[in-house]
Amino acid sequence: MADAGWPGCAKSLTGVVLDMCGVLYDSGEGDGVAIPGSVEAVKKLKASDLRLRFCTNETQATREEFVAKLGRLGFDISVSEVFSPAPAAVAVLTERGLRPHLLVHDGVLPEFDSVDKTNPNCVVIADAAENFSYQNLNEAFRVLIGLEKPVLFSLGQGRYYKETSGLKLDVGVYMKALEYACDLNAEVIGKPSPVFFQSVLTDMGLQPHEALMIGDDLVNDVGGAQHCGMKGIQVRTGKYRPSDESHPTVTADGTVDNLAQAVDMILDQRRGH
Amino acid sequence: MADAGWPGCAKSLTGVVLDMCGVLYDSGEGDGVAIPGSVEAVKKLKASDLRLRFCTNETQATREEFVAKLGRLGFDISVSEVFSPAPAAVAVLTERGLRPHLLVHDGVLPEFDSVDKTNPNCVVIADAAENFSYQNLNEAFRVLIGLEKPVLFSLGQGRYYKETSGLKLDVGVYMKALEYACDLNAEVIGKPSPVFFQSVLTDMGLQPHEALMIGDDLVNDVGGAQHCGMKGIQVRTGKYRPSDESHPTVTADGTVDNLAQAVDMILDQRRGH
Repeated sequence: MADAGWPGCAKSLTGVVLDMCGVLYDSGEGDGVAIPGSVEAVKKLKASDLRLRFCTNETQATREEFVAKLGRLGFDISVSEVFSPAPAAVAVLTERGLRPHLLVHDGVLPEFDSVDKTNPNCVVIADAAENFSYQNLNEAFRVLIGLEKPVLFSLGQGRYYKETSGLKLDVGVYMKALEYACDLNAEVIGKPSPVFFQSVLTDMGLQPHEALMIGDDLVNDVGGAQHCGMKGIQVRTGKYRPSDESHPTVTADGTVDNLAQAVDMILDQRRGH
Repeated sequence: MADAGWPGCAKSLTGVVLDMCGVLYDSGEGDGVAIPGSVEAVKKLKASDLRLRFCTNETQATREEFVAKLGRLGFDISVSEVFSPAPAAVAVLTERGLRPHLLVHDGVLPEFDSVDKTNPNCVVIADAAENFSYQNLNEAFRVLIGLEKPVLFSLGQGRYYKETSGLKLDVGVYMKALEYACDLNAEVIGKPSPVFFQSVLTDMGLQPHEALMIGDDLVNDVGGAQHCGMKGIQVRTGKYRPSDESHPTVTADGTVDNLAQAVDMILDQRRGH
């Protein structure tokens, strides 16, 4: 049988990986709001025979706080099911004996508690939001330009995301700024890094072709997953834009209105409908 | 006769264009300080038969305030002799019927007084310094991403500059940030844009080969001028670095210790010495 497209490929899946912001909920004031149908869709997946993980580039909070917030929105998710860039960065820093200067959100600082930050020999940036001030960017730049061999880690490379108050610039934009200032290339930790997707697959005990990624970010979720050998489905929620459907380099395996529709299509296929 | 190099080419010159910061003066506390010999060198050029213009990427003040500052340092320069990116941007905006959203330093705002800024259909960024806040960058981004055909103008493309308080990120870094966020290429107004050099030549009534540029920035002053068909001389003041003399892509027509030496060599040649 030829390789089935979407939604036919759902028959042979063993696991599903979900992006969170823009798929499960929209961020904004307070906890943000659940996207209609998403709470129920996660319940259906958990009740199915599919393995499920959550893969986010969220770096404004610790995983514990993030999962608690999702709980208040009605989602039943545990910390061990969530993959986010900060713990992955801590592993890389520890392995390479690097001491970071951090330009990150206050909320994610506890993830770095165990890391030596004295006399920094690299810079780590994440979605720092209000902490992306002129002063803080100049300071991160001065640390980098003062190093004999500047090393910059970027937790994700997103361009922007949507909050209820409007679109906000994401960490990738500040990564590009510091790359240009120092004439270097950052190392990206998080989506769309294949290393990051692979860590999720390893935890699930799956080969890439057995898993499907569902996200709102065409390049980082869909393209990143596809680059890794997974299928990638885009939802028309969150940061989705109609122009994504004619993107020059990334074509989703399928595009659906929202997570609820994706999950219903997957489960229908598996029931042989 | 073969094309004469430096300083022989000075015999056939009709005009000289001078960069300002790093050639006439060094910036810093208050007005900064005049570079020794530069005040006298400008006087000598003005007393000669050469046409003279000043060409700067300065965007933290209006030309009026900038010229007043230079007057306090001892330079006799008039506003009409100074070419800076903001008035050039105003000309482009007017010609193309564009209404800008401005992300610039407060000091340069009066240059844009005559421009219609309602319902913006493009974004103009310059060295905004403290105004490069997270909020202001998000706002500029939202204007761009909301346009059917986003247009971004950047007044210069410098990476960083030195102030007495330390290195500061320059406009080019924020240009790269917004370029990445919106997946576009900015239009640079100011050095090294050939259009900008050409506007100076047009005002002088000269062909490129009749004019010489003197600057401290190898890429933006010397390379920019050469790209336009002018000769380019670098001074060993301002942001000059010894490695400039073995730069992989730009080779100055001549390198001199400072403006005073350049002017003496030019005038000596023209006297037939």
